[in-house]
Amino acid sequence: MADSDLQGLRAQIDEINLQILDLLNRRARLASEIGKIQQKMGTSFYDPEREAQMLNDLQQANNGPFSNETIKALFREIFRASMALEEKEARQKLRVQRQRSDERTVITMPDGTQIGNSDFTIISGPCAVESIEQIDEVAAALHERGVRFLRGMGWKPRTSPYDFQGLGLEGLRIARQVANKYGMFVVSEIMDMSLVTQMTDYVDIFWVGARNMSNSFLLKAMGQVRQPVILKRSYGATIQDLIYAAEYIVASGNPNVILIERGIRTFEGWTRNTLDISAIALLKQETHLPVIGDISHSAGRRDIAIPLAKAVKAVGADGLMFECHPNPPVAMSDAKQQLSIPEMHALLDEITDTQKVLA
Amino acid sequence: MADSDLQGLRAQIDEINLQILDLLNRRARLASEIGKIQQKMGTSFYDPEREAQMLNDLQQANNGPFSNETIKALFREIFRASMALEEKEARQKLRVQRQRSDERTVITMPDGTQIGNSDFTIISGPCAVESIEQIDEVAAALHERGVRFLRGMGWKPRTSPYDFQGLGLEGLRIARQVANKYGMFVVSEIMDMSLVTQMTDYVDIFWVGARNMSNSFLLKAMGQVRQPVILKRSYGATIQDLIYAAEYIVASGNPNVILIERGIRTFEGWTRNTLDISAIALLKQETHLPVIGDISHSAGRRDIAIPLAKAVKAVGADGLMFECHPNPPVAMSDAKQQLSIPEMHALLDEITDTQKVLA
Amino acid sequence: MADSDLQGLRAQIDEINLQILDLLNRRARLASEIGKIQQKMGTSFYDPEREAQMLNDLQQANNGPFSNETIKALFREIFRASMALEEKEARQKLRVQRQRSDERTVITMPDGTQIGNSDFTIISGPCAVESIEQIDEVAAALHERGVRFLRGMGWKPRTSPYDFQGLGLEGLRIARQVANKYGMFVVSEIMDMSLVTQMTDYVDIFWVGARNMSNSFLLKAMGQVRQPVILKRSYGATIQDLIYAAEYIVASGNPNVILIERGIRTFEGWTRNTLDISAIALLKQETHLPVIGDISHSAGRRDIAIPLAKAVKAVGADGLMFECHPNPPVAMSDAKQQLSIPEMHALLDEITDTQKVLA
Amino acid sequence: MADSDLQGLRAQIDEINLQILDLLNRRARLASEIGKIQQKMGTSFYDPEREAQMLNDLQQANNGPFSNETIKALFREIFRASMALEEKEARQKLRVQRQRSDERTVITMPDGTQIGNSDFTIISGPCAVESIEQIDEVAAALHERGVRFLRGMGWKPRTSPYDFQGLGLEGLRIARQVANKYGMFVVSEIMDMSLVTQMTDYVDIFWVGARNMSNSFLLKAMGQVRQPVILKRSYGATIQDLIYAAEYIVASGNPNVILIERGIRTFEGWTRNTLDISAIALLKQETHLPVIGDISHSAGRRDIAIPLAKAVKAVGADGLMFECHPNPPVAMSDAKQQLSIPEMHALLDEITDTQKVLA
Repeated sequence: MADSDLQGLRAQIDEINLQILDLLNRRARLASEIGKIQQKMGTSFYDPEREAQMLNDLQQANNGPFSNETIKALFREIFRASMALEEKEARQKLRVQRQRSDERTVITMPDGTQIGNSDFTIISGPCAVESIEQIDEVAAALHERGVRFLRGMGWKPRTSPYDFQGLGLEGLRIARQVANKYGMFVVSEIMDMSLVTQMTDYVDIFWVGARNMSNSFLLKAMGQVRQPVILKRSYGATIQDLIYAAEYIVASGNPNVILIERGIRTFEGWTRNTLDISAIALLKQETHLPVIGDISHSAGRRDIAIPLAKAVKAVGADGLMFECHPNPPVAMSDAKQQLSIPEMHALLDEITDTQKVLA
Repeated sequence: MADSDLQGLRAQIDEINLQILDLLNRRARLASEIGKIQQKMGTSFYDPEREAQMLNDLQQANNGPFSNETIKALFREIFRASMALEEKEARQKLRVQRQRSDERTVITMPDGTQIGNSDFTIISGPCAVESIEQIDEVAAALHERGVRFLRGMGWKPRTSPYDFQGLGLEGLRIARQVANKYGMFVVSEIMDMSLVTQMTDYVDIFWVGARNMSNSFLLKAMGQVRQPVILKRSYGATIQDLIYAAEYIVASGNPNVILIERGIRTFEGWTRNTLDISAIALLKQETHLPVIGDISHSAGRRDIAIPLAKAVKAVGADGLMFECHPNPPVAMSDAKQQLSIPEMHALLDEITDTQKVLA
Repeated sequence: MADSDLQGLRAQIDEINLQILDLLNRRARLASEIGKIQQKMGTSFYDPEREAQMLNDLQQANNGPFSNETIKALFREIFRASMALEEKEARQKLRVQRQRSDERTVITMPDGTQIGNSDFTIISGPCAVESIEQIDEVAAALHERGVRFLRGMGWKPRTSPYDFQGLGLEGLRIARQVANKYGMFVVSEIMDMSLVTQMTDYVDIFWVGARNMSNSFLLKAMGQVRQPVILKRSYGATIQDLIYAAEYIVASGNPNVILIERGIRTFEGWTRNTLDISAIALLKQETHLPVIGDISHSAGRRDIAIPLAKAVKAVGADGLMFECHPNPPVAMSDAKQQLSIPEMHALLDEITDTQKVLA
Repeated sequence: MADSDLQGLRAQIDEINLQILDLLNRRARLASEIGKIQQKMGTSFYDPEREAQMLNDLQQANNGPFSNETIKALFREIFRASMALEEKEARQKLRVQRQRSDERTVITMPDGTQIGNSDFTIISGPCAVESIEQIDEVAAALHERGVRFLRGMGWKPRTSPYDFQGLGLEGLRIARQVANKYGMFVVSEIMDMSLVTQMTDYVDIFWVGARNMSNSFLLKAMGQVRQPVILKRSYGATIQDLIYAAEYIVASGNPNVILIERGIRTFEGWTRNTLDISAIALLKQETHLPVIGDISHSAGRRDIAIPLAKAVKAVGADGLMFECHPNPPVAMSDAKQQLSIPEMHALLDEITDTQKVLA
C-alpha cells in the first residue's frame, strides 16, 4: 500500500514540476524583455533593490513548509539564472571562453611561426639578461635546437629592493641584438604600463608577470599593443582569476593572449610552488587561448625538470617555458632552478622523442 | 514609456513569483509525505534514480528560453531544499549544531569544575611525559597558578618512526600520580581504540589528536567512554570536517566534546601552522560545544605566545592550551614551542589581568 | 670506562670548537675588510664565482669523513654569515626592521592625530564611493563615533572587467568633500603610479591594495609622496614578502608606512580568506611600523565581525579596518561583508569597552 | 691597489678555509667515536644538554665580530652535520629512500603480475561496493581491458556519520567473489587495525586511506601483513610526511608498499584537490617504491580525467588509479568523479596508445 501511495504522490510531484518549469520559462521571457529595455537605458542588469523588494514580497506571502530562508535561497538561484540568461543574450559572455570544442586562438608571428597550433612551443632563456656573453651563449644553444622564443628580461620583479633588479632597457637592447643574430623572438616582461613606449620596439611578445597579473591598468594597456601578450598566473591566483585577467586584455582589444601556469603557493615545501597540472587541462577546456607550462618557477628546482616537462606536454599544453643559463650556480637570480645548457639539451631530447616521453 | 513597460513586466513577474512560491510549497508538502513513507520503509531520503528520471522528464518538456542545463541546475536546488526539509523534519539536524544563541554544552568534572561556562579554562603541561621529575615540576608550577588541566601524554604521534614515541602506559601512570598529588585532571591522547581499556583508569579527559581527527573507528569508540573528549582539528581539515568529526562522537553517545583549533597548513612559513582565529568564532557560532585555542602547535614558536593567547581569549574561546616544560631546549619533542615555567607565569599574568589583555 | 672515554673525547671536541670559533672570527674580520674595498669599488658583496671557486678548493682538499656535500653546505652557511655581517656593517639592514623593542613609527597627521601610538585607530567607510548620499550617511555615523579615517575609494580593483570599477576621480572628489564636512581624513586606493598627480590633492593617506602589493614601480612611487601609505598584504603573500614590499617604499624615501593584515588564501572555505592573526603579532615584533587588521576582506562575512575585531585589538594591532555601508545588501561590491550602520555601532560599542572585549 | 689588497685578503681567507675544513673533519671523527660508544650504551645520538653546554662555552669565548647568535647558528649546523654522519654510519638512513638511481621495489603478486616494473598498472573499480550487480558490471568491463586490480571497498571513510559508510565485510565478500570470477586482485581499504584478521582472507592488497595516513598504529599493523600495502597521501600531508608514513610500514616488516599521490588541499576551488604532479616525480626520485597517481580524488571531476591520466603516465608514475561505476549519477558516494564504463574505455584507449598520449 505504501508503494501505491508513493506512486500517487510522485505523480502529483511530476505534475507540479512541469508547472514550475512552465512558470520559470515564462518568467525568463519577461526578464529578458526587461533586460532589453535596461540595455537601451544603459542600466545594469543587476538591480539589487528590486531583488530585495521581490524577496521581501515572497517572504510576506510564504506560509511554509519551506522556511523564508529556503524560499529566498531558491529565488536567488532563479534570479541568478535569469540574469545569466540576459547576459548571454547581450553577448556578454567572456570573450576568452571556449564556445565550441574545436575553437582555438592560434597566434601567428610575423614570419609565420605559430603558437597554439599543433606544434609544441618552447620558450627559454635565462631568468634575466645579465650580459651579452651570457644571453648569446644561451641563444646560440637554443637556436641550434630550433627554439624560436627567447626570454629576454630587462626588468626583473624582485621581492627585496636590494636584489638584482635587471639591466632595464640596456638588457632589452642586448636581448634584441642577440635575438636578431639567431632569428629569434624576444619575450620580455613589462612591469609598468609607463614602459610600453620604450619597450615596444624591442619586444616581440610582452610578458605580464605573476606579480602584475591583477594589475588592471597594465592589463588594459596590454590590450592596446600590437604584440601578443603572455599572461602568467600569480602564485596566489585561482584559475578563475587568471581567466578574468586575460579577459581584461582581450576586452581591451588584443586577442593574442597566451596563458602560463606556473604553480601556486601551498603548504608543500619540497617544491617552491605546486605546479597545478589540472589547471592546464581546465584552461584548455574552458578557454580557447594557448596555454604554456612553466616548470622552472613552479618547481624551483632543476632535478625534476624532465618529468615535469613530459607531464606538461602530455596534459595537452601548447608549450613549455623553462629557464636556461650558461652557468646556473653564478646566476644573479633563481640560481637553483635554471637549467644549464647540457641539461637543456637532455630535456629537449627527452620531450621531442615521443617514445621517451612515455618511457 | 520604457518605464511604464518596465512596470508592467515587473508586475507580471511578481505574479509569477507568487505562483512559483505556491507550487514550491505544495511540492514540499508532497515530498514530506513521501519522506514519512520512506522513513517507515527504512529507505534513504536520497533517491538518485528518481531524481535522474525527474530531470529527464523536465528536459524533455523544456522549450526554453532556459537551457536544459539551467533547468536541471534549478531543479537540483529544489530537490536539495526538499530533502533538507525532510531531514529536518526527521530531526536529523546535526546534534552538535547550535539551535539557539544561548545554547551551550557545559562540561562538569567530578569535583564540579566546569569547561564551557564563563570561566576561561587553561590546559597545559609538557608535549609528552618524559619523567616524573619533569612532569612534577611543571604540574607544581601550574597548580600554583590555579591551572586544573594537565597534559599528560603517554603516547605521542610522530611523523618519523625513529622519533621519541612517548613512554606509553608508564607515562600515563606518572601523569596520574602527579595529577593526584596536585588535585589536577589528566588530559591524555588516545592513538588507537584498542587503548581505551588500559587508559580509562588513568585519564580524566581523552584527547583525539590531529592525525586521528578523521579516524571514525576511534571517534565512535570515544562515543562510548564516560570521560569528556577533546577533539583537535587536523592541520588539513576544514571547519566543516571538524564539526562532522565531533558529530561522530556525539552521535555515538558522548555529548561531552571539546573542540580545539590549532592552526592549518598554509603557504606561510614564519609560523608552523596558521592559527585560524576565525574558526574559533565560527565554531562558537555554529556549535554549542566548548572551543579551545592551541597556541603552541599553531605557531610552533614561543615568541608570540602572549599576543596569541590574548587574541584567543578576546575572540571568545572557552579556554587556552599551551605546552609548558621545565627546560624547553632539551625537550624530547616540540622544543621550539614549549614555554618555560617563567614564560608560563608571564603569559598567565598577561591574560588574567583584563587591563593587560588590551594594553 | 666508556664514561671516561666519553669525557676525553668531549674535551677534545671542546678544544676544537674553540679553534673553529677563533678561525671563524678571524675569517669574518678578513671578509669585512674585503667588504669595505668592494663597497668603495661599488661592487656587490655577493660574488658567486669567488664562492664557487672556494667551494671547489675545499672539495679538492676534503678527505672526509664529512662528505663533499656536507662540507659545501657548512661553508655556504659560513659564507652567508659573513655576508650578513658585511651587510650589517654597511648598514643595509632593512629600514623597516625593529632594532629595539620600544622602537615604533608613529605617524602624525597635519592636525596632530596619530597612528601607531597607544590609541587604537579605526578606518572605515564603504567598499567604494557610490554616491555622495551614500558616503555622507556613513561618514556622519562614523564621525559621531569619533572615527577619523574614511575609506574613500574612487578606483576599485576588480577580478572581472565587467564588475563595477568605481567612480574614479569623481568618487575621490566626493569623498574629499564629505571628509572635509566632518573633519575626517580620506584614505584612498591608488591603482597605478600614473594616478599620483591627480590623486594627491584629494588624499590624506594613500592605500596600496593587495593586487598591487608586489608592484615595485608603484611602491617606489609611494616612496616619493608626502602622504603616509597604507600597504595591504596580498592574499598570496608571505609575511616576508610584505616586509620587503614596505622596504621598497621606505627605501624610496617615505618612512610613513602602515601595514594591513587581511587574510591569506587557504583551503578553508567558510571564510573568504583566513585572517592570519599571528602575522599581526609577528609584524609588530619584527618591524616598527603600525599594523592594522582588516576584518572585512579576510572573513568576507559580517556575522563574525565583532569577535574578530576583539581578537585584532587583543593581539596588539594598532588599529582596525572594516567596511561600512548604509545599505549593504544593495552595495555595488562586497555586499556580504560590509557592516550596516547599526552593526558598526554595535562593533564599536564592544571594542571600546575593555570589559566587553573579554566578556 | 685595491685589487692587490683583495688578492692578499682572499689568500688569507683561503688558508683559513682549509684550517676550518681540517678541524671540522677532525671534529667529525671524534663525534663518530662518541657515537659508537653511545650506540653501545643504547643512548640517543642527540644530547641536547651537552649541546646547550657547548653553545654556552662558545658564547663565553666569543669576542666577535660574529655575534653570539651567528656563532650559535653556525655551530648548530655543525652539530647537525655531525649527528647526520653518526646516523648514517649507524645505517639509520630511511629504508624507503632510494640509494642508487636504478634501485626499485618491484611487487610481485602470487601469479607473477608485477607492480613497479616497466608496466603501467591500472587500479580501478567503484568508489565503494554497493551490490554484486554493480561490481560485477564494472569488473567485467575492466577485465575485458586487461585491468587486474579491482577496487573492492567494503568500508568507506566518510566525513559525515550520516553518509553511506559501505557494506563492510559483506561488501568485501562480494568483491572477492567477483574478483575470483574474472581472475582479478582485490584492493580494499582497511580503516582500523582491528579489522586485519577478518579482512585478510578477502584482500590481495591492503589500502590505507588518506584519513589514516598518519595513524601509526595501523601503519605498524600493516608492517605485519603478508599482502602489499597501498598508502595514500593525505590531502593535508607533505611529501615528507608520506615518506615517513611509508617508513613506518617498511620498518615494521613489510617492504611491499605502494604510494599514491591524490592531490592536496589548496585555495584553488575548480578542482576538489590540487593534483601534485611534482610529488610523483619527487617520490620516484627519493624513494624506490612504486608510485601511482589517483586522478579521481584529486580532481573530483570527470571531465579532465583523460589529460590528467596522460600527465600521470608521462611524469613517470608506475600506474594509475581511477574510479569507475556502471552509473555514476546514482553512485552512493563520489558521484561527480567516477567514470562511466564508456568513459573508462575512452581513457584506456588514450593512454595505452603512445601516439595519443602526446597528441
